[in-house]
Amino acid sequence: MPSAETPIDPIRAVTELLARLPGVGERTAQRLTFHLLRQDAAYTAALAAALTQLTRDVALCARCHDFTAGGTCAICRDARRDQALVCVVATPQDLHAVEATGEYRGLYHVLGGLLSPLEGVGPDNLRVRELVVRLGESAPREVILALRPSVEGESTSFYLQKLLKPLGVAVTVIASGVPMGGEIEYADRMTLARALTGRRPA
Amino acid sequence: MPSAETPIDPIRAVTELLARLPGVGERTAQRLTFHLLRQDAAYTAALAAALTQLTRDVALCARCHDFTAGGTCAICRDARRDQALVCVVATPQDLHAVEATGEYRGLYHVLGGLLSPLEGVGPDNLRVRELVVRLGESAPREVILALRPSVEGESTSFYLQKLLKPLGVAVTVIASGVPMGGEIEYADRMTLARALTGRRPA
Repeated sequence: MPSAETPIDPIRAVTELLARLPGVGERTAQRLTFHLLRQDAAYTAALAAALTQLTRDVALCARCHDFTAGGTCAICRDARRDQALVCVVATPQDLHAVEATGEYRGLYHVLGGLLSPLEGVGPDNLRVRELVVRLGESAPREVILALRPSVEGESTSFYLQKLLKPLGVAVTVIASGVPMGGEIEYADRMTLARALTGRRPA
Repeated sequence: MPSAETPIDPIRAVTELLARLPGVGERTAQRLTFHLLRQDAAYTAALAAALTQLTRDVALCARCHDFTAGGTCAICRDARRDQALVCVVATPQDLHAVEATGEYRGLYHVLGGLLSPLEGVGPDNLRVRELVVRLGESAPREVILALRPSVEGESTSFYLQKLLKPLGVAVTVIASGVPMGGEIEYADRMTLARALTGRRPA
């Protein structure tokens, strides 16, 4: 639709911006825009306000580097959490996944990614130095490495294990094996092999 | 993540609002929110501004009832378009689809839906009266009914044909048949039957 009436056509602007989101093509973006136009304006206004707040108020927690809306994050400020336990994760999403288990009551450290020489990601591109400084200051009882069981995840784990050894802190890694409800028959060889080597007394 | 730091956690707010969009589940909404957090803030700010503009500036064209950002829409105001040709569509999306063909240079009329007695949609719920008034005033050469070949679309077409007959305007309906590139072998019976009855001299 040609639009001479305004310098920017809001329908086209919203469609083009939505189309840049991952997994949203041009057709989906158009469908979403028309959906918004049919909605109560209050919803779209609330979304716009929340997005504005997101860019304005959300920053990284100075301690764990998770996203937070106000200085130090709620987890780091929560005195009831075990301050002597630090779980190292690659991303804030991974932190949320661990948190959602309800099984963990310690603190976190978000690396901001995994080592990947092929993609030019080295220790200086991750929050490795911050981790070392932090562990040197707080001397926790245990550091849990909760990194993805993949080439990058395991190289990062190995790298951190070697790096943290001199600090004298106990370093553990999360278990890898056949997922809950998974079929032994259909488990891939690597996963099954890992489940076997990681076996423990029943 | 518990959030005591602000009355509203923008991360959770954006996630919950995005999760209300069609085809966007909770997981996708969370993925999109984290994607936004990793983006340049300018993108998210632009999206927020465009959404605000969408709710504030977009209204329905008083003549054709398409969405427009300023009074009468650009199509209705375009004097180069054939003013004696009106294409009736169910939704603004359908209007955009017809417009995208580049084959049509007349005006439009957006009904705002299709007749559906089962869903309680009668002529009074659509812009039927507006269409009759408009055709009475402008007396176009032809009215093209571009409604979906479905029970609702065809009932609406039949209804409008009967209604517009006394106005003495030529009413046509778009062709229905085997789609371009479609296989005769795999066409459904209804479509193939329609293609046969709608046959024309080669």
